[in-house]
Amino acid sequence: MRKALLVFSGGQDSTTCLYWALNEYGSDNVIALTFDYGQRHRIELQCAEKIASLAGVKHTILPIDTLSVLGGNALTDKIEIESEADSETGLPNTFVPGRNLIFLTYAAAFAYQRGIRNIVTGVAQTDYSGYPDCREETMQALQQAINLGMESDVTIHTPLMHLSKKETVELANSLGAMEAMGYSHTCYEGAQPPCGACPACVLRARGFQEAAIDDPLITRFGAS
Amino acid sequence: MRKALLVFSGGQDSTTCLYWALNEYGSDNVIALTFDYGQRHRIELQCAEKIASLAGVKHTILPIDTLSVLGGNALTDKIEIESEADSETGLPNTFVPGRNLIFLTYAAAFAYQRGIRNIVTGVAQTDYSGYPDCREETMQALQQAINLGMESDVTIHTPLMHLSKKETVELANSLGAMEAMGYSHTCYEGAQPPCGACPACVLRARGFQEAAIDDPLITRFGAS
Repeated sequence: MRKALLVFSGGQDSTTCLYWALNEYGSDNVIALTFDYGQRHRIELQCAEKIASLAGVKHTILPIDTLSVLGGNALTDKIEIESEADSETGLPNTFVPGRNLIFLTYAAAFAYQRGIRNIVTGVAQTDYSGYPDCREETMQALQQAINLGMESDVTIHTPLMHLSKKETVELANSLGAMEAMGYSHTCYEGAQPPCGACPACVLRARGFQEAAIDDPLITRFGAS
Repeated sequence: MRKALLVFSGGQDSTTCLYWALNEYGSDNVIALTFDYGQRHRIELQCAEKIASLAGVKHTILPIDTLSVLGGNALTDKIEIESEADSETGLPNTFVPGRNLIFLTYAAAFAYQRGIRNIVTGVAQTDYSGYPDCREETMQALQQAINLGMESDVTIHTPLMHLSKKETVELANSLGAMEAMGYSHTCYEGAQPPCGACPACVLRARGFQEAAIDDPLITRFGAS
């Protein structure tokens, strides 16, 4: 049976990909993998769990402390793990260049151990703005490195790679993802209901508006 | 100034690479990076520290809990970190396919944050026996994925790629690495003095024998 592993943040894009994967492989054959890398907003993990439950797929949370360390105070010789946000800047200390390379390589190792040959990720070149690890060219090179390095035969699927936000909303709608989308997390502020003002909320709202579809997340909070 | 980051286990090969890097870049321009992935033999970390100190280079230990999790009991939906060896098999629960992909991608992120464009690793194709993540082809693909994914210009140097164990010993000797080599760790049993019987000890002994050079690790314990 063909199986797939979804890299799943609980956000709009990976929720769309979850339903894409359900449609391709069937709910019994999809595992959603969420990375706990010390997200400032722990609500992301709860959203991921709720959505996976709604979709009826297995869900695994894999801790990655290393990203916190690398993203944070790794300038000293001896490093202590620090998973909290920086109290002064309020920024998460977990940004690491090429983070998707790490996520996908871990996902590939996880998939390898289970005989899974399909990895699905919601990266999109369209959104590419300082995120070179989301580009198609990067994904292709990484797929090659993974397959050589693990002697495996994995395909990294990127169903959203060339879609606009509008098209992603339309895809999610056509795949029946809208109930789950009501629990997906986007807001940079970690707010529920979403703040509506941060760049992530604005981008999401524009996508739904252009697709002429109500955002079920907004509807759920009665704030439409 | 050209700088280099060395992926440094404290073993024979990466100790040789440390002196290769010293020779290429100078001790002020080399950082040794050791991954603490829950090694069964904690002595490896002490060896790495001792050797880095002898060589006069900066040394950083970066924790990777995720490998323990992936290598271990990650078959359940909810995963707990378990960094100890399996008490029944005595094997470390940290083996993960393509582990070098993870190490080198973290090293690249670490290097990126410090403006370092050279990464040195002791992987060798000669030793290739079930370790596809040590092959030259894998390293080349990974270098491309890293450079695309981080918009960087990193070179992964593999000075031992095509050397036999004998040639590695000769290289280490010519680079003045022998004092440090006396503290390098090889034994699978984690023993000091080394057990002399495990495959790693046997392979190491053969290399020194073929090079007609005394192993300073053996000499140090007066067990020659």
